[in-house]
Amino acid sequence: MANFKGHALPGSFFLIVGLWWSVKYPWKYFHQKRKSSRQHQYERLEIIEAAIRTLFSVIGILAEQFVPDGPHLHLYHENHWVKLMNWQHSTMYLFFGVSGLVDMLTYLVTHVPLGVDRLVMAMAVFVEGFLFYYHVHNRPPLDQHIHSFLLFALFGGCVSIFLEVIFRDNIVLELFRTSLVILQGTWFWQIGFVLFPPFGTPEWDQNDEANLMFITMCFSWHYLAALCIVAVNYSLVHCFLTRMRRRGGGEIIGIQKLKSDHTYQTALLNGSDEE
Amino acid sequence: MANFKGHALPGSFFLIVGLWWSVKYPWKYFHQKRKSSRQHQYERLEIIEAAIRTLFSVIGILAEQFVPDGPHLHLYHENHWVKLMNWQHSTMYLFFGVSGLVDMLTYLVTHVPLGVDRLVMAMAVFVEGFLFYYHVHNRPPLDQHIHSFLLFALFGGCVSIFLEVIFRDNIVLELFRTSLVILQGTWFWQIGFVLFPPFGTPEWDQNDEANLMFITMCFSWHYLAALCIVAVNYSLVHCFLTRMRRRGGGEIIGIQKLKSDHTYQTALLNGSDEE
Amino acid sequence: MANFKGHALPGSFFLIVGLWWSVKYPWKYFHQKRKSSRQHQYERLEIIEAAIRTLFSVIGILAEQFVPDGPHLHLYHENHWVKLMNWQHSTMYLFFGVSGLVDMLTYLVTHVPLGVDRLVMAMAVFVEGFLFYYHVHNRPPLDQHIHSFLLFALFGGCVSIFLEVIFRDNIVLELFRTSLVILQGTWFWQIGFVLFPPFGTPEWDQNDEANLMFITMCFSWHYLAALCIVAVNYSLVHCFLTRMRRRGGGEIIGIQKLKSDHTYQTALLNGSDEE
Amino acid sequence: MANFKGHALPGSFFLIVGLWWSVKYPWKYFHQKRKSSRQHQYERLEIIEAAIRTLFSVIGILAEQFVPDGPHLHLYHENHWVKLMNWQHSTMYLFFGVSGLVDMLTYLVTHVPLGVDRLVMAMAVFVEGFLFYYHVHNRPPLDQHIHSFLLFALFGGCVSIFLEVIFRDNIVLELFRTSLVILQGTWFWQIGFVLFPPFGTPEWDQNDEANLMFITMCFSWHYLAALCIVAVNYSLVHCFLTRMRRRGGGEIIGIQKLKSDHTYQTALLNGSDEE
Repeated sequence: MANFKGHALPGSFFLIVGLWWSVKYPWKYFHQKRKSSRQHQYERLEIIEAAIRTLFSVIGILAEQFVPDGPHLHLYHENHWVKLMNWQHSTMYLFFGVSGLVDMLTYLVTHVPLGVDRLVMAMAVFVEGFLFYYHVHNRPPLDQHIHSFLLFALFGGCVSIFLEVIFRDNIVLELFRTSLVILQGTWFWQIGFVLFPPFGTPEWDQNDEANLMFITMCFSWHYLAALCIVAVNYSLVHCFLTRMRRRGGGEIIGIQKLKSDHTYQTALLNGSDEE
Repeated sequence: MANFKGHALPGSFFLIVGLWWSVKYPWKYFHQKRKSSRQHQYERLEIIEAAIRTLFSVIGILAEQFVPDGPHLHLYHENHWVKLMNWQHSTMYLFFGVSGLVDMLTYLVTHVPLGVDRLVMAMAVFVEGFLFYYHVHNRPPLDQHIHSFLLFALFGGCVSIFLEVIFRDNIVLELFRTSLVILQGTWFWQIGFVLFPPFGTPEWDQNDEANLMFITMCFSWHYLAALCIVAVNYSLVHCFLTRMRRRGGGEIIGIQKLKSDHTYQTALLNGSDEE
Repeated sequence: MANFKGHALPGSFFLIVGLWWSVKYPWKYFHQKRKSSRQHQYERLEIIEAAIRTLFSVIGILAEQFVPDGPHLHLYHENHWVKLMNWQHSTMYLFFGVSGLVDMLTYLVTHVPLGVDRLVMAMAVFVEGFLFYYHVHNRPPLDQHIHSFLLFALFGGCVSIFLEVIFRDNIVLELFRTSLVILQGTWFWQIGFVLFPPFGTPEWDQNDEANLMFITMCFSWHYLAALCIVAVNYSLVHCFLTRMRRRGGGEIIGIQKLKSDHTYQTALLNGSDEE
Repeated sequence: MANFKGHALPGSFFLIVGLWWSVKYPWKYFHQKRKSSRQHQYERLEIIEAAIRTLFSVIGILAEQFVPDGPHLHLYHENHWVKLMNWQHSTMYLFFGVSGLVDMLTYLVTHVPLGVDRLVMAMAVFVEGFLFYYHVHNRPPLDQHIHSFLLFALFGGCVSIFLEVIFRDNIVLELFRTSLVILQGTWFWQIGFVLFPPFGTPEWDQNDEANLMFITMCFSWHYLAALCIVAVNYSLVHCFLTRMRRRGGGEIIGIQKLKSDHTYQTALLNGSDEE
């Protein structure tokens, strides 16, 4: 859907997921620290989130297929491929749907190994990047440029999520992922505004070097904004939880001890001596 | 062997290995969890598998060398290199043969360090990708395109297998490897069908942009199919083992505890305090 | 600021940070080893450093904006982007400012998770590399060449700093980072000397192949110099601390035990047996 | 030194180091396992090795500088850079010399942090690759091709050695490094034979596609040979040590237990429960 809405919709989708994660992960982090009994509650939350993500993806697929000028599930017709763009977008949604499904299964079915959810999510992000990479051929420079930046967010995210297979529940990796999803969301909106100006504003000159330069810089501003959103939500969650607890007369959370007297490496090397 | 069979044969080889792994690794995973006494049985299985893989590779080498238009072990003849394509394929098989051999040795000979088998397997996959990379020169766009996707599976697999040197017996990495091998297998078949249509179907236009676009998307569908195959086999193995155990009156396997109250990093940083 | 000063200023900035780090990290390392009670003192130091870095960055932004031919905070004026070069430099400084701010917060506010400071620093370095990458278009070969080397230092540094999220307080990674910052500092000076010879020396021929070759080699010499600076400062800190302690009658620091009888992997694999 | 000797000399250098390592690391590995008291002896060995490597490098520098047509330490003369090729080779040797020096210091001076030796070695390998990368411009295809393969060995080695900073004394990583050094050694010889045929054999056609194809395959054969050499030497060391011990009436070494019932990840996740 090469128009403003076609970029605003996925943008909003990613933005909502990102905003939600920027609340969920701090919330989980603070509760983990208190070793609270809310484990069960948290798992239910994860399942609901994954279900909603799956639902969103199904809606995305249906929208891409059954918009008036969509392929209506026809792939090959009279020696021509039918609306491959819509099919590619459907494929992207499909992978995010599968990722949501696997997330659900991880919490519902006890024999699914932990980490598979992250692996499938990493692959979903990779496939999005993979399709985008071959997507943006033969277009004007600004169009190529502005889409290619998504690849940084996507492949960076793919590596980071893959790391979570091994370093699961690392709050920093989770917040990094969150910031990249928000970045993707706002950047989709930006693409929409630049390539299909919605309010009758004049078109951008797609070959102007200065426009390319501005857009490059603009991408880093978007990331800064994403970082700020994550930071603000993190603080809000902390304040909210602290206030809740004070009212309930509970203990105050004192989380982080700045200790570094034993580095990881030393621990590994001298491990056999000290134990 | 630039024909349909030349792609169907290695495709089947990888497919069989992938399908077998998608049964073996879940089986191993569930047994590990029960700390069963089947260690010895499992080792014998690994040795048999490695032996079969080595045998396959030897057959592959012999086939490439002694097909009627093969080089028959002649490398240089009258100032010309003889059938370098067949020699390159032989080299790929050779590396997989060596990898199988090292796998066998790891279980048979006690002084081979664990991890060497993974290292050699990673190098075998790397060499396949390396030879493919320089292989696909000066060909029509679709041919280049469709072969180049193999490189994603190969180099991704190489990194993942290399990680297993350090994080050995990680079920998620093993399943990832399995899915990539299945992907490779089905993709070889796909290449065969596209470049050498077997049943008299018309040739694909190798320069049509739409064909390239479809093939790109098709690759991600193949990966999805590979993931589904792994998931189904994983579930079947679980069901089978559960039923077996119920009959035998044994305990039911309750594997995975969704615990995350201690992240890896925290454990590392506070390690010295808590112990 | 495409002149000598415009390269000497950021060069000095990075050089000062690098020199300071080459003193700070050894100092911290030796104190950690002694499990001294100087933890509090060290945290105050970190906060001061981060504050100074933030201050430097603000000065950098203001300088880029309000130099006589700067944009004075105007971004878009009469259908033209205003002084995008200055805006890009401001953006780089901005990210380093945010990194400094997050460093401060990590030590001041207890609920900021450890590692976020490294993540934001890695992103600041990445953004610098990202902007540089698209910066150096359409320039003479030598100009492109000499700037592109910065990318090695920047992306290498980005990966290394990202690793510190997981392997925090690893002295080797810290010294590596330090050496890369010093390299960046001296290289900025080198760029200034080559592209804008300050003392009336003749201009370099920007298309001469020999000049490119020399500059390539020169970059590795700069890194060697950076390594030497780090090594010398490391030794000086050690000597100084040893002398201090001898005077105070304290114990002599005997840090490193060269033990390697248990490799990491063995520890992991046999872990369950030995404990 | 663009002639046969100029490739045979560094080739021999790397080959000797590789062969020595393929004996040293297995030897160390078997002794570690027995927790023998030879720690001291081993350290002395490391120091001697590092000293010899440093010496070799110094000889290399002197050779490059003072061969009859060398630069004799003149870098810039009458507005021309003097013999930059020799200077680049000197720089490579210089970095390997520094790496040897740091290795020595790690064992001689107790306050050098473990891992710095690996870091500097990784950087020495990186610098070699970096200089090679910009080295091989404007040459015939075969020349470029055959040199570019070295980059695989170099950058692969760089990453692997960098990993040793964190996973020190991992025998698999050490053997991998060893095999890459041997590969580099034999490949230098191969380059010499191809580009400067020594025994009056006819020159290779540098533009023949078949030659490129053969050389690509040949590189993977070299790696296979390197793996075989490592494997053979590993076995010889094992046999020798076993025989020595039997004579001395000592116990037989039974090293590796094939245990995998606890994966790394599980250990991390359930760590808090089991302890």
